[in-house]
Amino acid sequence: MATEVSITPPQSPEKKIGNEEEDDVVDPWNVVSKSQTGVDYDKLIKKFGSSKVDAELLQRIEKVTGKRPHHLLRRGMFMSHRDMHTILNEVEKGKPFYLYTGRGPSSDAMHMGHLIPFFFTKWLQEVFDVPLVIQLTDDEKFLWKDLDMDKARKLAVENAKDIIACGFDVDKTFIFADLDFIGQCPEFYQNMVRIQKCVTFNQVKGIFGFGDSDCIGKISFPAVQATPCLSSSFPFIFNKAKLPCLIPCAIDQDPYFRMTRDVAPRLGAQKPALIHSVFFPALQGAMTKMSASDNNSAIFLNDTPKQIKNKVNKHAFSGGQATIEEHREKGGNCDVDIAYQYLTFFLEDDERLEQIRKDYSSGAMLTGEIKKLLIDTITPIVTEHQERRKTITDETVKEFMRPRKLKYTY
Amino acid sequence: MATEVSITPPQSPEKKIGNEEEDDVVDPWNVVSKSQTGVDYDKLIKKFGSSKVDAELLQRIEKVTGKRPHHLLRRGMFMSHRDMHTILNEVEKGKPFYLYTGRGPSSDAMHMGHLIPFFFTKWLQEVFDVPLVIQLTDDEKFLWKDLDMDKARKLAVENAKDIIACGFDVDKTFIFADLDFIGQCPEFYQNMVRIQKCVTFNQVKGIFGFGDSDCIGKISFPAVQATPCLSSSFPFIFNKAKLPCLIPCAIDQDPYFRMTRDVAPRLGAQKPALIHSVFFPALQGAMTKMSASDNNSAIFLNDTPKQIKNKVNKHAFSGGQATIEEHREKGGNCDVDIAYQYLTFFLEDDERLEQIRKDYSSGAMLTGEIKKLLIDTITPIVTEHQERRKTITDETVKEFMRPRKLKYTY
Repeated sequence: MATEVSITPPQSPEKKIGNEEEDDVVDPWNVVSKSQTGVDYDKLIKKFGSSKVDAELLQRIEKVTGKRPHHLLRRGMFMSHRDMHTILNEVEKGKPFYLYTGRGPSSDAMHMGHLIPFFFTKWLQEVFDVPLVIQLTDDEKFLWKDLDMDKARKLAVENAKDIIACGFDVDKTFIFADLDFIGQCPEFYQNMVRIQKCVTFNQVKGIFGFGDSDCIGKISFPAVQATPCLSSSFPFIFNKAKLPCLIPCAIDQDPYFRMTRDVAPRLGAQKPALIHSVFFPALQGAMTKMSASDNNSAIFLNDTPKQIKNKVNKHAFSGGQATIEEHREKGGNCDVDIAYQYLTFFLEDDERLEQIRKDYSSGAMLTGEIKKLLIDTITPIVTEHQERRKTITDETVKEFMRPRKLKYTY
Repeated sequence: MATEVSITPPQSPEKKIGNEEEDDVVDPWNVVSKSQTGVDYDKLIKKFGSSKVDAELLQRIEKVTGKRPHHLLRRGMFMSHRDMHTILNEVEKGKPFYLYTGRGPSSDAMHMGHLIPFFFTKWLQEVFDVPLVIQLTDDEKFLWKDLDMDKARKLAVENAKDIIACGFDVDKTFIFADLDFIGQCPEFYQNMVRIQKCVTFNQVKGIFGFGDSDCIGKISFPAVQATPCLSSSFPFIFNKAKLPCLIPCAIDQDPYFRMTRDVAPRLGAQKPALIHSVFFPALQGAMTKMSASDNNSAIFLNDTPKQIKNKVNKHAFSGGQATIEEHREKGGNCDVDIAYQYLTFFLEDDERLEQIRKDYSSGAMLTGEIKKLLIDTITPIVTEHQERRKTITDETVKEFMRPRKLKYTY
């Protein structure tokens, strides 16, 4: 277990372990960076024991899929993995795998950062042509937040609409919310109990920092997030076939899957493979956290073009200099500039991005100009998302959430 | 919490608390008495904080139901309760309640002692004319025992046949096995999670003696046994009606329901009422435990008349004297004599039982004679049970286990 990275639930800050003075805090409930350039991912990869996404892996993905790697992969936003080569081996043998990702539906309005794993997952689904299951952990949010259960379930449906609006293929995608689905699938519950038998309180204490005053719901929850890693949890999709699983997710979710990778072989299943993303920074910079309760910390998917413009202009942390003269002379710092950072996520054109980097770094491009470029890049992404979301009804969500066969070749 | 009674799971014997040198051990996994007359129930009632079933309660039950109390009630086998008067108040107001009992299906062959709570529950169901839910905790047995899941599920079905053979009315009885049912009922799972949010590890540690090396399945299991106490867990039976719940069970199960009674009001539900039975003694006497692995410790429901005869004659602990002469002179001790003890459970005729007590105590009746009386009493009970069980098919079990409306007046 990684001990230097502080792993602690929000309820027990006194139980932080390790050198939290020096290190970033990264766990499913906390991401706190001590540096304006954000979390030190090389350090984190070493601590978590995962592998770096390197040039060789990118080349192999390109070779196997015949497609140029997604810009989030090329640019190192998905920078860490476990067993990606195993998955590619299977693909080369003509064997199928499936994708699993998820979201804890904690607020009505998702922000742009929430789209990143789904954009990338959609790309993976398309280039590999594989089925995808998406877990909405409304039970987790109910257990961790001061939230009533009906509200948690409602948030799951609203978040599902934003996810569907990313353009997932209903024939290949099953979305489920725990509080409604688990009571519809005996095999899923049975796998949950199997996993719960393999994991002790000591283990979840070590991995997640749970304490004696945590409720038993939190303590057993890791099994709920682990269960979709077993294809036998979805008999209506996979019948009795044992398919390996690839999980694209932000790296803070890795503790769940380190636990699952320990358990899976004991249940006769393959360890899930993972591909981890960096965190999407808050408007105020990589040291602060985006928060649904602070409307100015992020661009929300329901923001108007005017709100987007205002937020970027007023709140996006700038790597520029104090005066125009100084900026022209010294240039801006792209490593901390949020407008530039956001562009790396959302501007697909590599050449244009590189030109922006050069111009801003040299001082040829001013802060107002790079912010305008960002506004022009993300406004259509958000407004088009809103257009697509409008077309998604409760019926659409029901269809994505209906346990059913998915289309995949085997 | 009762602290003098040792509450400890089998895995962590070092964690026993209280004066285990002096006290009986009574929890869901251990019943150990230090006395040949068995557990000191008056002491246990005081420690658990329940109420004694007294003459006043018996009279009231007779008045409200118009039926003479069951012999197990008259003779003090159901000797402790919580809130029975509240249930009777409801009945007097013409309001319905429901019964909930259960069993951990740990072996193919149930023994005669297992029938006691079901015989009594059947009587309660008949005299009050109320619906009944019976939980088979195959998940618990899977978590606690070295048992594979399919075997646990199979045991649940086999045990259900023995339960059904007690004569329950299919129109008023719903039997469910956790591993199959929970994945068929979102409302049940949702209530489980609600309960899991209300109970901390500290609490289950205090109540059940769980330790850090226990698996998270055990730690969260108490919520599974608590959930049937909420009528909203069975929407197909109760719709949205909130019915109070009465639980007939052996007193070792009380810790689960003490916990539930603490949680229920926080979930807007009534505390479950309970009526507790004493333990059914092993053939070797009240100080030893009946065990499915020791075939001679109990009369099993699949024993032949010859086996019953042999077991009673060879293994039933005798309160008689060493020689006939001594027995005639001093008489037998009914308080420890297993033949007499078993007769108090199974011989319904009060006058005849009293005559046997007198004759055996005086020495007029010999050990061989009282054992023969027991054999003659229980052999037809077992063989008739076997006859009824033969008629119960997997289809019958399926019908009892099908989530459906039950007949009750409201």
